[in-house]
Formats: sequence, C-alpha cells, structure tokens
Amino acid sequence: MKISISMFGLLTAVAMSLPAQAQFAKPEDAIKYRKASLTVLGTHFGRLAAMANGRVPYDAKAASDNAEVIAAVAKLPWAAFGEGTDKGETRAKPEIWKETAKFKEAADKSQAELAKVVSAARTGNLDALKAAVGPAGASCKACHDNFRKD
Amino acid sequence: MKISISMFGLLTAVAMSLPAQAQFAKPEDAIKYRKASLTVLGTHFGRLAAMANGRVPYDAKAASDNAEVIAAVAKLPWAAFGEGTDKGETRAKPEIWKETAKFKEAADKSQAELAKVVSAARTGNLDALKAAVGPAGASCKACHDNFRKD
Repeated sequence: MKISISMFGLLTAVAMSLPAQAQFAKPEDAIKYRKASLTVLGTHFGRLAAMANGRVPYDAKAASDNAEVIAAVAKLPWAAFGEGTDKGETRAKPEIWKETAKFKEAADKSQAELAKVVSAARTGNLDALKAAVGPAGASCKACHDNFRKD
Repeated sequence: MKISISMFGLLTAVAMSLPAQAQFAKPEDAIKYRKASLTVLGTHFGRLAAMANGRVPYDAKAASDNAEVIAAVAKLPWAAFGEGTDKGETRAKPEIWKETAKFKEAADKSQAELAKVVSAARTGNLDALKAAVGPAGASCKACHDNFRKD
C-alpha cells in the first residue's frame, strides 16, 4: 500500500514535470506564467463572486463573459508547477512537490468547482451562480491555505 | 478637423478609463492584471510561433488548444490601461495616455491579427498558421516598440 502511494506520487510528479519541461524554457518562465494565469483566473472569478454576493449588480452578459475567460484559463496554471520550479519569485510551498497527489487533488477540485461556476453563469440564473460560487471560492482558498505561503 | 481628432482622443480616453475604473479597485490591480493577461497571451502565442517557425514539431491539437486560450485572452489586457494606471510597476510609456487613438489602433490591430491566427490554428493547416503568425507577431512587436519601455 505504501509502495503504491509512493508510486502514484512519483508518477504524478513525472506527469506534472514533463509538460512543464517541454513548455517552459526556464523555471522562472513557468513561475511567471502560473502566477499570471492565476491572476487572470482570480480576477474574473472575483467579478462573478461580486455579483453572487450582491456587491455588484448582476449582469447576465457580464457573468457569461467572465465565465468564458474562466473556462479557458482554469486549466492553465497546473502544468507550470513542474520539478525545479519550487525556487525563485514564488510563494509556492514545498508541499506541492512533496505531496503531489494531495496538490493534484486540490487543483482538480478547484477546476471541478470552477466548471460548475462556468455552467451556472452560462444559464443566466443568479441563484445557480450563487450556489456555485461559494464552493468554488472555498476550493481556491483551501489550495492557497495548504500550498501557498502568506 | 483638429477638434474632431481631439474629441476622438478624448472620447477614446473616456471609453478606455470607464471600464478600468469600474473593474479594478486600485490602479495596481489593473497593472498586475494587464501584465498577467499579456504574459498568458504571449506564452500561448509563442507556442504557436514555435510550431510555425519549425522550432517545435507541428501538433494540430496543441495548436488548436493554444488558439482557444488566445481567443479568450487577447481581448482582456486593453481595458486595464485606464486613466491613473500609468505609474507604478509598469513599463507602459506615457504615450499610451497621450496618443490614445494611436494606442487603440495598435491594440485593435493586434487583436485582428491574433483572430486570424486563431482561425488558422482551428483549421489544422500548418501553412495557414505560418501565414498568420508573422503579421500577428509584427503587430505585437510594433505595439511594444511604441508603447513599452525597454
């Protein structure tokens, strides 16, 4: 059992490091890219959350536009957490590379919750959006709490 | 004639500053966001350019995936160049806010050329991609040369 968990961690690490190595010339490029994609993601999620929480008036078209950005961007950051990208201008905790299965689970959870937000925003129904935004925000926060330095 | 050009510049400035004020709580948020969206855009355009230039083997699926990110992100940075976002952690030149019509023209040109790259990548035809990437890259460079500090 212990071996299979280690193997899974190893395989996940290999799977995560391969695209990063292939796609980024230097570790700092990967770090810059994952921060950038998370900034774009967070900005547009924040706009939906503001509507869901009533801080900004609900606008179905704006909600749908924000959702399309989220749909395109939510999958981007994760390939940029490859091996060798743990040092430099980053608040990423070492746990990302020590507990790779747990990190992948957290990233997958966020993507699944964000997919529900996208679906809700596409329906044009504010109640659906409200229901989806809370769990998605919680999934973002959980990953930040566990894997990002203050 | 002079008046109408000034009016156009003024109206463009107003049109550009309104969404930025509405969408970003602080100027530094707008600056961080525009840099982030341009980083994501540049990364995915770079991947298509690498295929078009033969530095990376052509992969129609990868090209199409990169194109979808570009389609979602190419329109994002421009609303974040509102009034008051000319100072701080930015290489943006003052000309952006002095020659607003010229800046808008350059931004629109880049978006138009990137739209052609997206269409070309969706066709799965490498020659179409090669034809579109050059002018798009030139439009990015022209805007950087004129409106970004070294």
